Amino acid sequence: MSHAASPADVQVTTLAVLALGELTTFERCATDAQFAPSMKDKVGLAGLAGHALDHYDGFAARIEVLGGDVVGLMQSIEPSYTTFQERTRPRDWYESLMKSYVLDGIMRDFHRAALVNLDESSREVATAALDDTRQADFLRIRLTEAKAEEAELSSRLALWGRRLVGEALTLGRGVILGFGLAADDETLSAILQSVTTHHSQRMSALGLVS
Amino acid sequence: MSHAASPADVQVTTLAVLALGELTTFERCATDAQFAPSMKDKVGLAGLAGHALDHYDGFAARIEVLGGDVVGLMQSIEPSYTTFQERTRPRDWYESLMKSYVLDGIMRDFHRAALVNLDESSREVATAALDDTRQADFLRIRLTEAKAEEAELSSRLALWGRRLVGEALTLGRGVILGFGLAADDETLSAILQSVTTHHSQRMSALGLVS
Repeated sequence: MSHAASPADVQVTTLAVLALGELTTFERCATDAQFAPSMKDKVGLAGLAGHALDHYDGFAARIEVLGGDVVGLMQSIEPSYTTFQERTRPRDWYESLMKSYVLDGIMRDFHRAALVNLDESSREVATAALDDTRQADFLRIRLTEAKAEEAELSSRLALWGRRLVGEALTLGRGVILGFGLAADDETLSAILQSVTTHHSQRMSALGLVS
Repeated sequence: MSHAASPADVQVTTLAVLALGELTTFERCATDAQFAPSMKDKVGLAGLAGHALDHYDGFAARIEVLGGDVVGLMQSIEPSYTTFQERTRPRDWYESLMKSYVLDGIMRDFHRAALVNLDESSREVATAALDDTRQADFLRIRLTEAKAEEAELSSRLALWGRRLVGEALTLGRGVILGFGLAADDETLSAILQSVTTHHSQRMSALGLVS
């Protein structure tokens, strides 16, 4: 691991990674709301953006209690995401929904694996965010509906899903290594394996092969 | 007035106008968060987007209690805003912040004038939203800061403010007439006059002449 970080540092950094994750989810859902094809979709996605923001607020409050600077921490983490964002620009609204579905699922897996870095109060905040399935449910239902209306979409989303999982695993691995968030290489391998398995299950839930 | 609307219709339509206003505020703040030049701005604007969404939720819940269909109502109102949005596309991030500052101030004036259309419970929901000055405070402080850093910005924002108020008055007048939301022409004139006065005060608070 490249940084020799103290447990207290690992804890606030982990919380900041989770906070930044929620903030990017907020941004993506809000953008998808803006370009939504119907008012119903717009309202649904705006609601999801609001939930992500609520989770963000929980993490930010916890970081403040622990004496961390959430803005500064997120600033130091954000550059890790730049390459990922550049390589995974959705070409349309459905690809953007799919990106949320795939990526937020994967982020949750990574974040769940990082719970070991947190004290009990921080873990409660994180678990509440991780157990919120409203976004995944909304996106699964909406993408299934879209696939039923447009036969061509399935193969395109399956391809897109494979691209996303590859890039997301690279991203997650980079963040864990870059900030010293996993105890050792064996732990990291186990995390990557578990993320891949859960990703396949999420793709199956959409009727797609990963 | 073009529609002969019942008081009950006027009430849910008024609530839907307020709800749609909050939803567009949410969208603009979220977009401004996405393109924010710093993490601090991003977090601040995301917070404002969240407040707008909370207000939206209040209006949507109230419309539901009254038996209205918030999505359907907003769908019928949205086309009134299309021309306005097309004519007031900000050219950069500061013009977008200024649009929020000017437009949301004007919308609040219009919405306050529409409180007479609401029953007591609806009025409480609306007043809570209208009395929330967090967005105006944030934008006034941020725009004042930007003006201090970039001298050229003042004249550009003053010009932009004049353009925005003209378009916003046309928009507000159109929505009031289109949906029969003011009792008579005299009431409408008084509303437009009061909006103009408050707009001048808001521009002065920024150190700009309206």
